[in-house]
Amino acid sequence: MSRVFNFSAGPAALPEAVLRKAGEEILDWHGSGMSVMEMSHRGKEFTAIIEKAEADLRELMQIPDDYSVLFLQGGASSQFAMIPLNLLRGKGKADYINTGSWSKKAISEGKRYCEANVPATAEAENFTWIPKQDQLELDPAAAYCHMTSNNTIFGTEFHYTPDTGDVPLVADMSSDILSRPIDVSKFGMIYAGAQKNIGPSGLTIVIVRNDLVGHAVDWCPTMFDYKTHVDAKSLYNTPPTYGIYIAGLVFEWLKEQGGLEAMAELNQRKANKLYEAIDGSDFYHSPVVPEDRSYMNVPFTLSNPDLDATFLEEAGEKGLVALKGHRSVGGMRASIYNAMPEAGVDALIDFMRDFEKRNA
Amino acid sequence: MSRVFNFSAGPAALPEAVLRKAGEEILDWHGSGMSVMEMSHRGKEFTAIIEKAEADLRELMQIPDDYSVLFLQGGASSQFAMIPLNLLRGKGKADYINTGSWSKKAISEGKRYCEANVPATAEAENFTWIPKQDQLELDPAAAYCHMTSNNTIFGTEFHYTPDTGDVPLVADMSSDILSRPIDVSKFGMIYAGAQKNIGPSGLTIVIVRNDLVGHAVDWCPTMFDYKTHVDAKSLYNTPPTYGIYIAGLVFEWLKEQGGLEAMAELNQRKANKLYEAIDGSDFYHSPVVPEDRSYMNVPFTLSNPDLDATFLEEAGEKGLVALKGHRSVGGMRASIYNAMPEAGVDALIDFMRDFEKRNA
Repeated sequence: MSRVFNFSAGPAALPEAVLRKAGEEILDWHGSGMSVMEMSHRGKEFTAIIEKAEADLRELMQIPDDYSVLFLQGGASSQFAMIPLNLLRGKGKADYINTGSWSKKAISEGKRYCEANVPATAEAENFTWIPKQDQLELDPAAAYCHMTSNNTIFGTEFHYTPDTGDVPLVADMSSDILSRPIDVSKFGMIYAGAQKNIGPSGLTIVIVRNDLVGHAVDWCPTMFDYKTHVDAKSLYNTPPTYGIYIAGLVFEWLKEQGGLEAMAELNQRKANKLYEAIDGSDFYHSPVVPEDRSYMNVPFTLSNPDLDATFLEEAGEKGLVALKGHRSVGGMRASIYNAMPEAGVDALIDFMRDFEKRNA
Repeated sequence: MSRVFNFSAGPAALPEAVLRKAGEEILDWHGSGMSVMEMSHRGKEFTAIIEKAEADLRELMQIPDDYSVLFLQGGASSQFAMIPLNLLRGKGKADYINTGSWSKKAISEGKRYCEANVPATAEAENFTWIPKQDQLELDPAAAYCHMTSNNTIFGTEFHYTPDTGDVPLVADMSSDILSRPIDVSKFGMIYAGAQKNIGPSGLTIVIVRNDLVGHAVDWCPTMFDYKTHVDAKSLYNTPPTYGIYIAGLVFEWLKEQGGLEAMAELNQRKANKLYEAIDGSDFYHSPVVPEDRSYMNVPFTLSNPDLDATFLEEAGEKGLVALKGHRSVGGMRASIYNAMPEAGVDALIDFMRDFEKRNA
């Protein structure tokens, strides 16, 4: 058995310690004689697991008491519909900051239910920068303002939290949740598919301020109404129990690493050394303006794209995998979420330097 | 490590061989150097996993080519809304055979979108029997007829497939899918939450005849439109990859056991010996009429309910767990899905006889 350094954008690498623990417990969780996969979601064992997971997430993110934490299914793509169905509250319009492919998917679904206005977009420059506060043409009458805090494909990230006044700010944090401390109280709602920085796919975390819950349109499917899940504490029907268990192990692991302050420091160190390696060479190039670069997803191109295939093949032989860039950007993309150890980034940089030496 | 016999109604026991294999592969699937949880859902490794899972399910259930197989999220509770949103096709009414709690939940959600008529119900007798064909007052103008093929709580099961003429028959098979061969061509759609007889929770299997796809109401959320998932082969967004992998291992295991004919034989033998033990005693009682009893969920009561707590406690000490009956029926319930070995049923019967001897 030899583990690779997996730079996949998502589903993505998990901490090896978490997988080892899950493997040890897969036939018998804590002497229960059964796997977590086999447990009733209403039994005392799973109740302990989900309650601990929620408590640890609340502690890690310092989530205020007037927010509910939900463990849902359906991914961010389901949230794209659930948000207008629940948060429009009789208003006919919402703002959507457009910073890339995932913003556009949210806008496209939002437009089916309301006037979806775009206070700012960097689409003309292929999403290589993030709009600043003074570039946002916000509508104070919008039901909410939607943003994508980190753009997995284009490698940009908001390094500030937009001020939307009394308009609830709703953030898709699928690719940077738990990578650094944030002030949850500045948001009306935060959501994230688990498969990048939390756990396995099939689990979606929603953190929603309670006053925004209970206003769904009257034809909203019961399973798409946040109130259904707030009232039932995510147990209206059987939740994705194993995903919640793995997420809980990741939360424990994050606490052992020192919490989100420590992760932010490590993530910045990892990203900065990779960006330095790219910027310090004429062989590699980052398409993103320096001040808006993501700490999680680092796209870069080779000056000669004919070498892309060789780069990927040789990297793979060194155990550096899933580095192929998204077709919207080309070249390479290194996703370096919480679970990517600094040694993985160091190994990538060593390989990049060696590859350059041999091919420049 | 000592494994119990887990009679949970769901999430339920999985084959130990499947869990052992998943444990062995959790850090490194087939030399990939990563867990299935860490793989891109669009990479060649996961593509092989999902394609094999679908092919094995098609082979096991003999699914005709004009049906699509979907791996979705959200459980049967999401299907309760997706069915009317997709299958009403401009018609204003549908039939719902009412055989228990899950039928009632489907009806309750269906009523929000159409006239939900009930061709038959056994509610007056606490759902202790299944309506026969000649008791069904079917409406030939209904958009579809919905049934619950096995009733987890009440322990009843359809031992025939209703003939609904040209009206598509839609079956919630969450608790008896894969327990026996069925003729898929008699159904317009079959669906099942995975957590009873397939795999972990968070995965929902939908088998739908292709002519029924593509007729969703125009305001249907994209993720609730079957066409979205048929067109994208269940990869419109990130599917619950680990659940699909475990389900695939269960399908392989079922093929090794001899397929659904062999499972049906084993399941009937397991259930029949348990019913014989109940019927052969004045100490235990089955509330269900003999001809409609479920092969999957066996509820039974003790003649003296004051002994319930002692029964459960002593059973637990023998490693026979999760036998507490649902509050709607009381007493005990033994869920004996595919993954419950015959030895587990034998151990339960031995314990029941011994308990009776000491307490009768």
